[in-house]
Amino acid sequence: MNPGLLIVVSGPAGVGKGTIVRKMLEKNSKFVLSVSATSRAPRPNESEGNNYYYKTREQFEAMIKNDELIEWVEYCDNYYGTPRELVLSEIEKGNVVLLEIEVDGALNVKRLFPDCVLCFIIPPDFNELEKRLRGRGTDTEEAIIKRLTRAKEEFRYLEEYDYLIINDSIENAAQRFFSIVQAEQMRTKRNQSIINKFKNI
Amino acid sequence: MNPGLLIVVSGPAGVGKGTIVRKMLEKNSKFVLSVSATSRAPRPNESEGNNYYYKTREQFEAMIKNDELIEWVEYCDNYYGTPRELVLSEIEKGNVVLLEIEVDGALNVKRLFPDCVLCFIIPPDFNELEKRLRGRGTDTEEAIIKRLTRAKEEFRYLEEYDYLIINDSIENAAQRFFSIVQAEQMRTKRNQSIINKFKNI
Repeated sequence: MNPGLLIVVSGPAGVGKGTIVRKMLEKNSKFVLSVSATSRAPRPNESEGNNYYYKTREQFEAMIKNDELIEWVEYCDNYYGTPRELVLSEIEKGNVVLLEIEVDGALNVKRLFPDCVLCFIIPPDFNELEKRLRGRGTDTEEAIIKRLTRAKEEFRYLEEYDYLIINDSIENAAQRFFSIVQAEQMRTKRNQSIINKFKNI
Repeated sequence: MNPGLLIVVSGPAGVGKGTIVRKMLEKNSKFVLSVSATSRAPRPNESEGNNYYYKTREQFEAMIKNDELIEWVEYCDNYYGTPRELVLSEIEKGNVVLLEIEVDGALNVKRLFPDCVLCFIIPPDFNELEKRLRGRGTDTEEAIIKRLTRAKEEFRYLEEYDYLIINDSIENAAQRFFSIVQAEQMRTKRNQSIINKFKNI
């Protein structure tokens, strides 16, 4: 009774998405990360296949053309997209695929896979988000302002998501996230074979 | 971010509904039981206001007439019903009201409260159910056969429920049940005030 699932995780830059997702992956061997492709340059501490598959703009555009991506967007002057193959094969194996993407991509995925689950991670409040973003120390002032403006735009789409997860602490947020996954695996619509077994007694 | 909820729990006689529900109540002070009214006689170990409010058939029929019940059914020659007042006031306080009723009642409640959550507890398999029912030693052979027949009828409505919980062990089932409650409290549709806060930054 653990059907495969596609869980989409969004949330503004600085909210702690990456940390929560890593926590989920550590805790549970059935969870796998859908690693995105991107045309942006690796940050210090990032590595190929771990954080992203790094592509040139030309390579990325070829992937779009060959329909190798479930969804893709151009965001802050870089391409981001989800390679199709990994996602489909992992769901079929009964694994829980975590896909960390921003709002436009998430809504595209929902259209293609109506059975996926959209989770949005929010900060306890907006000031906390700004604080975290500055504390991260990876962005210029200009980039921080761009990200905060983008966060406000993203919040307009909160209702399109299935679940809101408040990140008041990583431990709490990861535990709540785990409850969502476990609950979704018990939904009747995902367990038709069990239902058929009991209906045919 | 813990909106009040109405959780309806169904499942065949002998599946362990009562034990799981008691476990939930012990673990969490925000969980309250909606105690049903019934015209059936108390079993040994049952008590007024704890398991049921025990009524005569005449008293029960007066409650129906006065619209004091959210739903009621006649089942195995007895009336069972849910007093309206307790349920509404507890949800408003932000509590999680657990309502243990059978299929017809559950579907009636869903029609009246579309925001309620329907959970169906199933045994690992049908033989296990028969074994538990006989092991309970509270029913005559005739009653056991009646209950098993009724169980098969109830399984026809599994798809009308939101979640299936397999009771392979009380501990596991209670933990899964808790995940469902926690997940449902995070659903965007139940958290409009938080969404409004972030949309109006």
